[in-house]
Amino acid sequence: MGSFVETLRGIVGPAGVLEGDALQARLAGKPQQQARWLVRPADTAEVSQVLAACHAAGVAVVPQGGLTGLVHATDTRPDELILSLERMQQLSVDTTQRVLVAQAGVLLESAQAAAVAAGLMVPVDLGARGSATLGGMVATNAGGNSVIRYGMMRENLRGLEVVLADGTVLDMTNQLVKNNSGYDLKHLFIGSEGTLGVVTRVVLRLCEPPAGRGTALLALPGFDAVAPLLRRLDQALDGTLSAFEVMWQDFYRTVTTPPALTRPPLAHDHPLYVLVECGTADGTERLCEILAAAMEEGTVADATIAQSEREAKALWAMRDDVAQLRRSGPLVAYDISLRLADTGPYIEDLRGAIGRRWPGARVWAFGHLGDGNVHVAVHVPQLDAAGRSELDGLVYTPLQALRGAVSAEHGIGLEKKAWLAISRTPAEFALMRTLKQSLDPRGVLNPGRVFDTPLI
Amino acid sequence: MGSFVETLRGIVGPAGVLEGDALQARLAGKPQQQARWLVRPADTAEVSQVLAACHAAGVAVVPQGGLTGLVHATDTRPDELILSLERMQQLSVDTTQRVLVAQAGVLLESAQAAAVAAGLMVPVDLGARGSATLGGMVATNAGGNSVIRYGMMRENLRGLEVVLADGTVLDMTNQLVKNNSGYDLKHLFIGSEGTLGVVTRVVLRLCEPPAGRGTALLALPGFDAVAPLLRRLDQALDGTLSAFEVMWQDFYRTVTTPPALTRPPLAHDHPLYVLVECGTADGTERLCEILAAAMEEGTVADATIAQSEREAKALWAMRDDVAQLRRSGPLVAYDISLRLADTGPYIEDLRGAIGRRWPGARVWAFGHLGDGNVHVAVHVPQLDAAGRSELDGLVYTPLQALRGAVSAEHGIGLEKKAWLAISRTPAEFALMRTLKQSLDPRGVLNPGRVFDTPLI
Ligand SMILES: Cc1cc2nc3c(=O)[nH]c(=O)nc-3n(C[C@H](O)[C@H](O)[C@H](O)COP(=O)(O)OP(=O)(O)OC[C@H]3O[C@@H](n4cnc5c(N)ncnc54)[C@H](O)[C@@H]3O)c2cc1C
Ligand SMILES: Cc1cc2nc3c(=O)[nH]c(=O)nc-3n(C[C@H](O)[C@H](O)[C@H](O)COP(=O)(O)OP(=O)(O)OC[C@H]3O[C@@H](n4cnc5c(N)ncnc54)[C@H](O)[C@@H]3O)c2cc1C
Repeated sequence: MGSFVETLRGIVGPAGVLEGDALQARLAGKPQQQARWLVRPADTAEVSQVLAACHAAGVAVVPQGGLTGLVHATDTRPDELILSLERMQQLSVDTTQRVLVAQAGVLLESAQAAAVAAGLMVPVDLGARGSATLGGMVATNAGGNSVIRYGMMRENLRGLEVVLADGTVLDMTNQLVKNNSGYDLKHLFIGSEGTLGVVTRVVLRLCEPPAGRGTALLALPGFDAVAPLLRRLDQALDGTLSAFEVMWQDFYRTVTTPPALTRPPLAHDHPLYVLVECGTADGTERLCEILAAAMEEGTVADATIAQSEREAKALWAMRDDVAQLRRSGPLVAYDISLRLADTGPYIEDLRGAIGRRWPGARVWAFGHLGDGNVHVAVHVPQLDAAGRSELDGLVYTPLQALRGAVSAEHGIGLEKKAWLAISRTPAEFALMRTLKQSLDPRGVLNPGRVFDTPLI
Repeated sequence: MGSFVETLRGIVGPAGVLEGDALQARLAGKPQQQARWLVRPADTAEVSQVLAACHAAGVAVVPQGGLTGLVHATDTRPDELILSLERMQQLSVDTTQRVLVAQAGVLLESAQAAAVAAGLMVPVDLGARGSATLGGMVATNAGGNSVIRYGMMRENLRGLEVVLADGTVLDMTNQLVKNNSGYDLKHLFIGSEGTLGVVTRVVLRLCEPPAGRGTALLALPGFDAVAPLLRRLDQALDGTLSAFEVMWQDFYRTVTTPPALTRPPLAHDHPLYVLVECGTADGTERLCEILAAAMEEGTVADATIAQSEREAKALWAMRDDVAQLRRSGPLVAYDISLRLADTGPYIEDLRGAIGRRWPGARVWAFGHLGDGNVHVAVHVPQLDAAGRSELDGLVYTPLQALRGAVSAEHGIGLEKKAWLAISRTPAEFALMRTLKQSLDPRGVLNPGRVFDTPLI
């Protein structure tokens, strides 16, 4: 393999390739990272040449962005090569076309700052913004906090540049809103978790930031109130509803009970709570009006409306204080998607099933219900591997009949591969394999992630 | 071929297959329709069996919806089979999940009526609503009048059922908003003009209809005012801007001069006019405020705001009175996409080039500029085939350097196939061919549409 490494050095320069001790030093303390090489190309041409070399040598390539992905897709085996996009940090903003053009290694936070400096806004935001890269977010079709208004990465991408497994550069970076000139190829790569190509450049649409914001926490009399409330808010807010975050009682109690720092803004005895946000100049006043009507109608039992930016932040801090769930011990977290009408009964059934199997278990449910995305966090004392698999089964198996998804936003990676068949038919698997085979015939890109394919 | 027709009859019943005289009677007066068979399946299973039979026999299949497509994709040759979706008319609405589930033959107008009856709205609308089918709209990724707010068909599809060339049924009809469980395969088929699969079922998201509407016609001092005006409207309207239709002076004059029925609401001497619409309860008041500020700033020279539904309709009737352009004689119509900053200079250059080549020509420009989509209509007296091709060259060739698109929304079909390379690179063509080859190895689906592939 001496000449393979020489080839790599010739492409990216000596400092661009890490192996041996230098690589071990960098990967120290990360047992999930076993790779033999780490390569840091500076631009698309270098990515292309590195991939061509790996393709020729039959070396498996694992693209890495900010390593914030939650499904172990970037874990590496000893025979794999890490392709890090960390040197690819160029970015520019066009205020007329309202797009941001960036290399794939740009951090979400940097993109957001550049957009804000130009008076605009990146429509996607998520908690990992300080580490997640735009390339990784495209590869995972990241969602986040305001999907209900702005969509996921897919809906916000104007263009993409991708390098295929054999080094072919696909330049799809035109900045057009509308383009029906042939197949829209970029969608193949969005959300395919690095298995079909390496994202090197991204054209993201930028939005006008809302002139104001309204934020409120509501208590609901029961799950049946969720759908009518969501519709009422949506109707009255003309598409400016940007968050509809449901918390079941157990979650709300845990994040508002010491040692959690938040005091409960509303009493603890309601079955459900919803954090709503709208982005519009008179948001607070509009929420006041709507909630008055909803309380009269009975879909809202109690409510508090943030009267300042500080109060709004405090409500979000409570919702985001997921760390409190770890007070009882280690957690298993799920990220599933369901039809809204199925969600309430599903959670009740799941809670029952887990409680019967493990009487000492705890179950917290919360999520972006405006998008049908439920997060379920479970603590089972002394859960071993067999127990984990049994727990996965309790969570995932009912989704098949309900046509739910085993991953709403985090993806499949290695973690959920065994369960993907819950959400996809054999015909879909066959087509996924056909695509993988056609685009990466030697199987060098992220092999074994999402589904199994032979490495040739 | 006797047994082939028997096979078809066995699948769809005798009334489901037309050939010979019966077919000639139906296709009378349509010289572009030369097909040998027309088959009308009633459900997905029948579509699947018909495709399997055609695949086995190597017969080319042309799916037909409402035949409103504008790029000759549904023209047929004598050896082709028309697959009409006209019997596939089932539809249902779910007001909790806010989706419409429909067979592909459902007319847009029927879908709209069903949504309205349920207090909801289909987010896509276009002039051909009385004939266009949902399947055809998926296949062409149709856009329409409110893309700026709601997106094209792609952005509004929750799920899809597609039958592949060999008869394999791909059921991707879950109704989820968020689903990152494996590759999102439906995007392969959206906008691929029936060359990769036949759409049999569609799950469309439904939206809450806006509580009110504001409509105005503005006169602009010049193209430089377009981008700042669009940004100002977008900022002030919080995402409720639903139309931003630009008309160059020549277009405005023609649609407001007798025999056109509309009297000019604003004087004829401004270089550009914009019809804007926003969907929100206090739309008219908000437009008043914004336009006062824009006039002070100088981005708007004159304006009239519709004070009633009737006045709003009259403004739209003027914008939609494209038939007036035919007063001088036959037209060639283009549907291109550009970056906003490039659009003004491009139109001026094009006008100059056409005027130099054909001093008697007329050029009208208008379009959904909020989406970068420009329609150019040209009348050249006595234009022959060679002249047409020369005219196409004048329109399309400059798009290559500008990275524009030869089709913003109508697609490629047969009409623009020769020009697709203006907008796509050889690497993109190669990948499109790879996809076609993988999904339709015998090349039986819409052969020769979009790009050339061998029929095996
Ligand atoms: C605190 C926290 C909050 C989060 N919140 C959300 C949330 O709200 N919504 C949500 O959707 N996700 C969320 N995530 C997970 C989310 O998937 C990641 O944050 C992000 O999308 C991954 O970006 P990354 O650069 O870290 O990618 P990595 O973790 O490095 O990689 C993720 C996957 O993408 C591939 N990849 C990376 N870069 C490229 C590239 N350039 N080309 C091709 N493939 C590539 C990798 O091989 C891997 O398969 C969160 C994670 C954390 C830690
Ligand atoms: C007056 C008028 C206004 C229009 N306005 C707009 C507009 O604003 N925006 C816009 O985007 N377009 C517009 N169009 C064109 C638009 O493409 C069509 O209206 C519509 O999308 C096509 O639907 P259809 O059912 O008529 O398809 P057809 O014309 O029958 O077919 C169009 C294409 O789709 C394929 N196809 C049809 N059904 C299926 C199926 N079930 N599965 C697979 N492939 C299929 C055909 O093979 C063909 O390639 C307009 C057309 C007219 C006549």
